[in-house]
Amino acid sequence: MQTIGLLQMDATVGDLQGNSVRLSNLAQRAHENGAAVGVSTELAICGYPPRDLLLERDFLQLCMDHALALPSPLPLLVGTPIPPADPRSLPSNGVVRCGPDMLDWMDETGRIVAEKQLLPTYDVFDEARYFEPTNRSGLARSFGGMTLGVTVCEDAWQSAGMTPSAYEQDPIQNIAEWVRQGVEIQATVNLSASPYHSEKFSTRLQVARHAAAVLNHPFLLANQVGGNDDLLFDGRSMVVWPDGTAIVAPSWCEGVLMVDLAKPEECRWLPAGQSDSLNIGEGHLVRLGPEDDQLPKEHMIEEITHAVVTGLSDYCRKSNIQSIVLGLSGGIDSAVAACVAVEALGPELVTGLAMPSRHSSQHSIEDARHTAQALGMNFHLHEIDGMHEATEITLDTVLSDGHPVAGENLQARLRALLVMGYANAQSSMAITTGNKSEIAQGYCTLYGDMAGGYAPLGDVYKMEVYAMGEWFNQRAQAQGKTPPVSQSTMTKPPSAELAPDQFDEDTLPPYAVLDDILRSHIEEGLNAEDLVKVGHSKDLVLDVLNRLERNEHKRWQMPPAPRVTSRAFGQGWRRPLASKHNWRTK
Amino acid sequence: MQTIGLLQMDATVGDLQGNSVRLSNLAQRAHENGAAVGVSTELAICGYPPRDLLLERDFLQLCMDHALALPSPLPLLVGTPIPPADPRSLPSNGVVRCGPDMLDWMDETGRIVAEKQLLPTYDVFDEARYFEPTNRSGLARSFGGMTLGVTVCEDAWQSAGMTPSAYEQDPIQNIAEWVRQGVEIQATVNLSASPYHSEKFSTRLQVARHAAAVLNHPFLLANQVGGNDDLLFDGRSMVVWPDGTAIVAPSWCEGVLMVDLAKPEECRWLPAGQSDSLNIGEGHLVRLGPEDDQLPKEHMIEEITHAVVTGLSDYCRKSNIQSIVLGLSGGIDSAVAACVAVEALGPELVTGLAMPSRHSSQHSIEDARHTAQALGMNFHLHEIDGMHEATEITLDTVLSDGHPVAGENLQARLRALLVMGYANAQSSMAITTGNKSEIAQGYCTLYGDMAGGYAPLGDVYKMEVYAMGEWFNQRAQAQGKTPPVSQSTMTKPPSAELAPDQFDEDTLPPYAVLDDILRSHIEEGLNAEDLVKVGHSKDLVLDVLNRLERNEHKRWQMPPAPRVTSRAFGQGWRRPLASKHNWRTK
Repeated sequence: MQTIGLLQMDATVGDLQGNSVRLSNLAQRAHENGAAVGVSTELAICGYPPRDLLLERDFLQLCMDHALALPSPLPLLVGTPIPPADPRSLPSNGVVRCGPDMLDWMDETGRIVAEKQLLPTYDVFDEARYFEPTNRSGLARSFGGMTLGVTVCEDAWQSAGMTPSAYEQDPIQNIAEWVRQGVEIQATVNLSASPYHSEKFSTRLQVARHAAAVLNHPFLLANQVGGNDDLLFDGRSMVVWPDGTAIVAPSWCEGVLMVDLAKPEECRWLPAGQSDSLNIGEGHLVRLGPEDDQLPKEHMIEEITHAVVTGLSDYCRKSNIQSIVLGLSGGIDSAVAACVAVEALGPELVTGLAMPSRHSSQHSIEDARHTAQALGMNFHLHEIDGMHEATEITLDTVLSDGHPVAGENLQARLRALLVMGYANAQSSMAITTGNKSEIAQGYCTLYGDMAGGYAPLGDVYKMEVYAMGEWFNQRAQAQGKTPPVSQSTMTKPPSAELAPDQFDEDTLPPYAVLDDILRSHIEEGLNAEDLVKVGHSKDLVLDVLNRLERNEHKRWQMPPAPRVTSRAFGQGWRRPLASKHNWRTK
Repeated sequence: MQTIGLLQMDATVGDLQGNSVRLSNLAQRAHENGAAVGVSTELAICGYPPRDLLLERDFLQLCMDHALALPSPLPLLVGTPIPPADPRSLPSNGVVRCGPDMLDWMDETGRIVAEKQLLPTYDVFDEARYFEPTNRSGLARSFGGMTLGVTVCEDAWQSAGMTPSAYEQDPIQNIAEWVRQGVEIQATVNLSASPYHSEKFSTRLQVARHAAAVLNHPFLLANQVGGNDDLLFDGRSMVVWPDGTAIVAPSWCEGVLMVDLAKPEECRWLPAGQSDSLNIGEGHLVRLGPEDDQLPKEHMIEEITHAVVTGLSDYCRKSNIQSIVLGLSGGIDSAVAACVAVEALGPELVTGLAMPSRHSSQHSIEDARHTAQALGMNFHLHEIDGMHEATEITLDTVLSDGHPVAGENLQARLRALLVMGYANAQSSMAITTGNKSEIAQGYCTLYGDMAGGYAPLGDVYKMEVYAMGEWFNQRAQAQGKTPPVSQSTMTKPPSAELAPDQFDEDTLPPYAVLDDILRSHIEEGLNAEDLVKVGHSKDLVLDVLNRLERNEHKRWQMPPAPRVTSRAFGQGWRRPLASKHNWRTK
């Protein structure tokens, strides 16, 4: 039996030339290691999600041209948009053949192997807006001596009943029907761009197992990896046999999963090995028996940490951002944000600023310095008292006669001014350090600590930020290094330090309680009544939801936002909870 | 023949109770003035566009309940989402009957008169994401003694060939076919939420005339008015007879267009007359002969000015914002933004701050004061030199060793600090004053002059801002008042005043040229080659498009944005050109 290489690629949306080079490199790597054929991820030529680029006729044709011209030493299935014949119609989300082993009759149209049938149009997906569906399943015949069923992402999900939409087609059943009618199909492949969220993997595994069982032959899923726009992709390409045995490629890494259909023990992982390849985490293959429904030793906080680092790292590489600057307050959020930034870019490209005011405690400065020194990043200290006093003199009666939060916000905004001063002077990107819990409650200052091009912790709840701090500390200890988050930072009560003796819990419930309410509401859709039923006090629930939905806390001081158009952050009348520069991890 | 009242309503998205009261009031007004029946706008019960609210089952049922229970003294057609029977299906965009004159068999389902057939899913529309289409046209029988064809917005556009999508159905042809088969239909009504952009009206008139001609009976279109989320609706409900004669309701006003089908000369406009009714502009009916394809005396700048004022006014009312604060630099943008704010809220609720630095000229302060005094708004002066010096001392070598734009940006950010200080202290909303041309070029400071909850001029090109200034001046003169924009403001060369002798034209092309390139590219889709063909120099075109697409100008200093998902602001790899708090006027 032949070996199939699944090309787990970190595509960049719109970078047709760069993606072509990456695809060719991976195909070459697979070929040199004995693969007979290769399979790319969904829309690999243009990256996923291409969104409004798909409205450009020129772009569609360029994608198709790049896909058809792709240099490949082995027969290769490549995901690409297929331009429509009629200019008022939409393109399809398709798969074409490249490389050798082409048959005589395969002109441009003949090389189209499959087009996506099920177009997800919910949550983060909007494919009915951009694509026309087809109603025939794909088949690659005489393909490296094999015949493969070919499906694209969602095509495989209806069969397992795992989609919110009820589709009329079931592409997996269609292929199973061909098998029953005697077509000899060695395996079915699925070109995917299946985004990450925590606990997504077990769902995806269920889908793949269901498909393999229905098809009664191996099911192979090649998944995109890396970050594009507001979506993160974890990779974890896999092959599943009808008995449920599965082999899973690593997450957050680019490379090739080499699949020997007949010999699971011969399956291998080939890292991409280019200097700019995504390569986060340990990079091991995982082998699951038919009964294993979890990845072994799965550590949720490690996974979220890798996700967050991948997001920031890919964002900087793809946006050509060379260095990062952030404020270091001595608190847990900025300490962990610094760990993430250093992990993503290396310590020499990250600068931390301690900017104490008259309300800052001495330990704040020491804790900030400790983190910077332990990480080996750049560190500067600027007292803001001079600026603070000059501003208070300028605003004088405006402050004394107005809402007290106006005065508190000045400090946060003066710090943003300094961070942005560094960013502009050095052509760096400022990052903001806020977590999902405080952003959800509006416990932050607009144009103050909210200022920055990227919010690495914007989709991470406060208690998870502490756990990430523990994770970075434990890893440092295991490596014989100084733990970057000081004990004082881990244990002192959270404080904005914008007024004397001010603590977060004066305004917010304890974070363990707050996180539980927010997570139940945002991630699981519980409403106020449900939250009271599971044991939270009614007043507390209403306080939290009120702050969440109206952001009445004056620190934010922004009008109610326009409606959210994606359910990514929950349902209904709600402000997006993460900066638009933040990747989704929930 | 009976009189039909078209209820041109300013719905608020999600405010079911408030919308019900508005609808009832308008129905009452129509009834008292002799209408036999009434027709609402599209989805009038929940407002358009409801977006993700439509994903909530509870919300759908609440809409339906409110629509069915609506108190109406006359038979009324009301737009509402219709909940689906199957929870995995989507709702329809429907129309139900309320009020008297109900027939025996009309249970809840029997009261559903029509469901939208054509679901626009392009540009600002995303209806295939939220609704299921139907394939039967609507008919209201025994409705105030009439039988009416009933269509919803896009349903009427396919017949005229005015949609980018090719639909398989043509609801207008369906109704025309019934007429040919002998069904006696007195008129066809269309419940619309057709958004405004400049020059949209003549397209909408063409669609209505085409429908009336095909149907061979009068076509009546009830259109939403006001602002919701990022969309503006101009109203201009209308009736068109098969010969092309048309009567058009006023724009930017709430009220009832009373249509006597047999006697065009008897048609009337009834203003809503509530204290919070939208009521901008002159509020006159327009009568068009079969050959008139323009509104008479249409003045594009007056129209845009009314649109911008409607947007800000509705945003504040619907978001419960009581007052506004803005920086007044003495330049044209802030002067016109102040005119708009005062027009929207009244002078006593608007505060302008002059915040000169060492680079500001004396005439800047005088020009700012002139505008504030002429408008009668609040005015304060704060020198920023003390803060500026304290900040320069704090940043010292960071500034002297870095990119010079970092130092320039400090002034803009210190001003934002003061504007936000006022906003927070007084619970006002800060507005930003930038225009579309400079925002498109990144010629503005992030967290500086870009700070604010709303950008009234964010979709208005620089030369249009000058024209708006002239319009406000001429109106003031006609009313015997002081023109608010001083001659010096109108004629001095634009300058950011962030460095000595700095002028916009040092960096940007003259605004007349810049606007022409931007408009051709953004609004008409011309690419670089096309722009050179129509006579612009290649270097200039590349400079402008480069700044537009990459925002390389360091003042902006933000990483490339995620892709834009709406074509509202053009095509391709482009940053949204207006704040998300801004209404679209192009």
